Amino acid sequence: MKFLFQVCLLCFGLNLFSQAEKIEPPFWWSGMNHSSLQLMVYGKNIADHDITISKDILITNVIRTENPNYIFITIDTKDLPAGTFDIEFSKKGKLLFKNPYELKSRRKNSALRKGFDSSDVIYLIMSDRFANGVPSNDSSKEMKEKADRNSEGGRHGGDIQGIIDHLDYINELGATTVWSTPLLEDNDEKYSYHTYAQSDVYRIDPRFGTNDDYRRLGSELHKRDMKLVMDYVTNHWGIEHWMIKDLPAYDWIHQWPGYKNTSYRMTTQYDPNASEADAKLCMDGWFVKSMPDLNQSNPLMLNYLVQNAIWWVEFADLDGFRVDTYSYNDKEGIAKWTKAIMDEYPNFNIVGEVWLHNQAQIAYWQKDSQIGALQSYNSYCPTMMDFTLHDALMEVFSEESKWNKGTIKIYDNLVNDFLYPDIDNLLVFAENHDTPRINEIYPNVEDYKLIMTLLSTIRGIPQIYYGSEIGMKGKKEIGDGDIRRDFPGGWEDDQNNAFIEEGRTELQNEYFNFTKNVLNWRKDKPVIHKGKTVQFVPENNVYAFFRYTDSERIMVVINNNPEKQMLDLSRFEEMLNGFDSGFEVISNQKIVLNKELVVGGKSSMIIEQMK
Amino acid sequence: MKFLFQVCLLCFGLNLFSQAEKIEPPFWWSGMNHSSLQLMVYGKNIADHDITISKDILITNVIRTENPNYIFITIDTKDLPAGTFDIEFSKKGKLLFKNPYELKSRRKNSALRKGFDSSDVIYLIMSDRFANGVPSNDSSKEMKEKADRNSEGGRHGGDIQGIIDHLDYINELGATTVWSTPLLEDNDEKYSYHTYAQSDVYRIDPRFGTNDDYRRLGSELHKRDMKLVMDYVTNHWGIEHWMIKDLPAYDWIHQWPGYKNTSYRMTTQYDPNASEADAKLCMDGWFVKSMPDLNQSNPLMLNYLVQNAIWWVEFADLDGFRVDTYSYNDKEGIAKWTKAIMDEYPNFNIVGEVWLHNQAQIAYWQKDSQIGALQSYNSYCPTMMDFTLHDALMEVFSEESKWNKGTIKIYDNLVNDFLYPDIDNLLVFAENHDTPRINEIYPNVEDYKLIMTLLSTIRGIPQIYYGSEIGMKGKKEIGDGDIRRDFPGGWEDDQNNAFIEEGRTELQNEYFNFTKNVLNWRKDKPVIHKGKTVQFVPENNVYAFFRYTDSERIMVVINNNPEKQMLDLSRFEEMLNGFDSGFEVISNQKIVLNKELVVGGKSSMIIEQMK
Repeated sequence: MKFLFQVCLLCFGLNLFSQAEKIEPPFWWSGMNHSSLQLMVYGKNIADHDITISKDILITNVIRTENPNYIFITIDTKDLPAGTFDIEFSKKGKLLFKNPYELKSRRKNSALRKGFDSSDVIYLIMSDRFANGVPSNDSSKEMKEKADRNSEGGRHGGDIQGIIDHLDYINELGATTVWSTPLLEDNDEKYSYHTYAQSDVYRIDPRFGTNDDYRRLGSELHKRDMKLVMDYVTNHWGIEHWMIKDLPAYDWIHQWPGYKNTSYRMTTQYDPNASEADAKLCMDGWFVKSMPDLNQSNPLMLNYLVQNAIWWVEFADLDGFRVDTYSYNDKEGIAKWTKAIMDEYPNFNIVGEVWLHNQAQIAYWQKDSQIGALQSYNSYCPTMMDFTLHDALMEVFSEESKWNKGTIKIYDNLVNDFLYPDIDNLLVFAENHDTPRINEIYPNVEDYKLIMTLLSTIRGIPQIYYGSEIGMKGKKEIGDGDIRRDFPGGWEDDQNNAFIEEGRTELQNEYFNFTKNVLNWRKDKPVIHKGKTVQFVPENNVYAFFRYTDSERIMVVINNNPEKQMLDLSRFEEMLNGFDSGFEVISNQKIVLNKELVVGGKSSMIIEQMK
Repeated sequence: MKFLFQVCLLCFGLNLFSQAEKIEPPFWWSGMNHSSLQLMVYGKNIADHDITISKDILITNVIRTENPNYIFITIDTKDLPAGTFDIEFSKKGKLLFKNPYELKSRRKNSALRKGFDSSDVIYLIMSDRFANGVPSNDSSKEMKEKADRNSEGGRHGGDIQGIIDHLDYINELGATTVWSTPLLEDNDEKYSYHTYAQSDVYRIDPRFGTNDDYRRLGSELHKRDMKLVMDYVTNHWGIEHWMIKDLPAYDWIHQWPGYKNTSYRMTTQYDPNASEADAKLCMDGWFVKSMPDLNQSNPLMLNYLVQNAIWWVEFADLDGFRVDTYSYNDKEGIAKWTKAIMDEYPNFNIVGEVWLHNQAQIAYWQKDSQIGALQSYNSYCPTMMDFTLHDALMEVFSEESKWNKGTIKIYDNLVNDFLYPDIDNLLVFAENHDTPRINEIYPNVEDYKLIMTLLSTIRGIPQIYYGSEIGMKGKKEIGDGDIRRDFPGGWEDDQNNAFIEEGRTELQNEYFNFTKNVLNWRKDKPVIHKGKTVQFVPENNVYAFFRYTDSERIMVVINNNPEKQMLDLSRFEEMLNGFDSGFEVISNQKIVLNKELVVGGKSSMIIEQMK
């Protein structure tokens, strides 16, 4: 024993903690469903070592790739208690160094965490452009791109502390969930502010804060009974990712002779007539030149992504993922990834970005879809973005009434609800960080109010985009930077502080107060969260629909005409039977439902049945 | 016996054949699957009689409605041989009169008749506007509207004999199947030429000919190995229908307080959010004021339609139905109607007009649809019209190439093929008698040729519209009459006889010869009829796709640019492997497939692999 100890000391002096540069995940938890843990160990010629583990821990597999700097060690953590053990690296029976590895204790009920759902309202934040909580971290010695608030495509300094500082604002507004654009390290030289070209997926970018800051964001949200959604990128990493610079395997990413950009023709994922070449180009082509396309058909790669995602849920106490470019991924790979997470957290939620313009094609990707089942496909992804509603909302409110123009487009979108396996798990939104800003399309606050009325009352999970609630604008034609302007008041020297009532202009308060009113009203309305819908064919560009449960009924009327409209209520008899008066949420007053209802020009009503 | 005979003679003298004005079907056949035959007997107070039938024939049911002029007698014809029996009408045990009823012998293999399919090309004829074979029947004493060739909406005199006279022309063109617009009696005062407002569904309109003429049309087609498709209207009859004037039952048609027009919002058929009022208005509202909406939820009405349809198949030896306004019908009723016909003729074909703009919504209505199954619905209708392809074809050839413009629209239509249970049973067409004329949208013969190339080679059943093959035009904006102009040469005094080569202008011959070439080539090409498709994402507005079987391959290229294009063939390697030369159908010459293919501006190629 004494001799061995001396050897170990020797090892310590020479090698210990020195040759395994990284072990990922950096730690894990006891009692996980994903108990067969695959540790990626990285270090110079690390594959030359033999691996043992102290204690009686079973190594079920050791995989070496063609790159000797990687070794993948699978250990069985099932039934292991929390604690630390050593991973030992030897050559010819001689222990050269070892790394401690920790299994932490899980939060109580971690596995059963409830993800965001239709009782929530998601507030989407462009992380670099919301609020600069810590000006001192705007640039970092480690990171190539430095802050430059004068550049539209540059880093402006928004950070996690900035979000934390304004959670009360978001809470007051009535949003319940924060989805921030990605915060993981992105060491691109340019445009790193959007952070979809990540260079280390176990680390928060120092210009946004630390891993602990992100965990604190989660706990601060939970204190307020709010939720945190992480924006996760499975399809690609940044060209600066440390593993891209020293690939574990040639097929870790999709390789091409020369560079190949994706065709963006996602339809090749299910077109029965698609050529193999086209399908390959779409799925394996790179999204842009700076984003190598990950190959999820490589099981090591896929498992790396699975464990990374689970690690963040557990570490930061997440309530959901938003998955970027969901339908560009390897179709089987992304389904496995999604299923692994949902198996770990059966009540969790994941929303996939499937940016298509056809409900059947979007529905294809939703968990348990019968459309997907036509091709024996199940993505296991619970929530889809209702991009066809988005298509409609970008046009409806500037259109006059015609057979297929005006509010009929909203109606026609809901017609196809029968294609979705779960219509409550649809993200409903008028804009996001990649689309035109809604207040730019519709410069009048009246139209904004119609949209917010709709989003607050329609089936699904409303998602709003930071700043629109105070009338923020920005032109997509100018560039992405312009639809991602800084939130006024987020920077110390901002003249206009729109985070507080006194700081807002009268018009900003009009936007804010309307939003605050309908979103807060929505919070405790199960009839909105889970009720059924009955919609009526719009007449004269007036769209009326009801949400109802056995015990509650709500009538929503949206008048898209500049002129007031008289509605003959007899048309709605099947829903108004016994519902002859109500509380109108927007005007905050009682209303009697007799023969006719007058709805002002470009205005809406939310009428709640009186009990 | 002698006494009885004398009584019968007395009956004969007084009543026989006098009080039952109509029995429908007027006769039936022995050995039908639909052997439980429901005879509709009409006559003044006919319901006051007791019914017996001579011989040992089982009457299984007798139904009287609130109108005493009707009685519905169900008899079991199973195992009955062909022959005639009497239906006897008595009161208080006294036989007052009787009607003979005949069960005819069926054609051999009638039940197993093979309907039109993807080996066919359908030629759609506007019956009143194609050819006037018998000028003497242009008007009829019995029928209100008289011929007026000078009126766009009037009757021009086209008739069945006119079609028969030009079957050789249609055959020469390469079409294999005739779908004529309806020929049954339509006694409307105006616009009766379109014949969708029928007044007697057991009778060919005398201005078109006789029932026997229609049967002769069938046999003349069959002589030429061609097929006959009847245009059937289940949704409505004309206001002049004799039964509408003396309704068997109040609910024989959809009744409303006052008049209600359908909303045409067919989506209410499956929108899970649709209001009951809207759904009722769409399905039960009348198509137009002159067309009472039939109530197929009334079993007597539905069965009347079922038997009428089967009667025409059997009588005229039909090869298929085209069903008008299929998706406006009572949803369950039309499914029962369709199933009854398909049960009688399992290899038959029926194409339903489901004029929607969304593939999932159209696919919903196809037999065994998994989309329909989402709502436990099966229409049993084998063939749908590919209206979304039609939408695309109306735009594609005048569009430059953009992300979602130009030939990509054809490509994108085929993407959704996975939604259809049977893509070979899709009617593919660029126009019909209700749409803009394709030669009006695209005035150049070059565009017509691109369209014909596509229709001749794409999956499905091509349907062309009379006259376009000689460049006929007509503006939908002017009115339906203008897209239904008379075929030149169909009337004795026509200057231009486009039915014969010498009668056609040079340009008319260019249209005709191109069509004739590709359609005749298509006739014996199983690879087109049943082959699979591989399509390539269009580049620079050039659309290329392949049809293939295990033994055959065909490459189709459509260049939608005015300029010639060079195609790098390496892109198509997966389909060209071993296919290095071919026969090009349009230019009628051999072609070598090397590295590049030059395709002329606004032209197309159909390259058949050489064997």
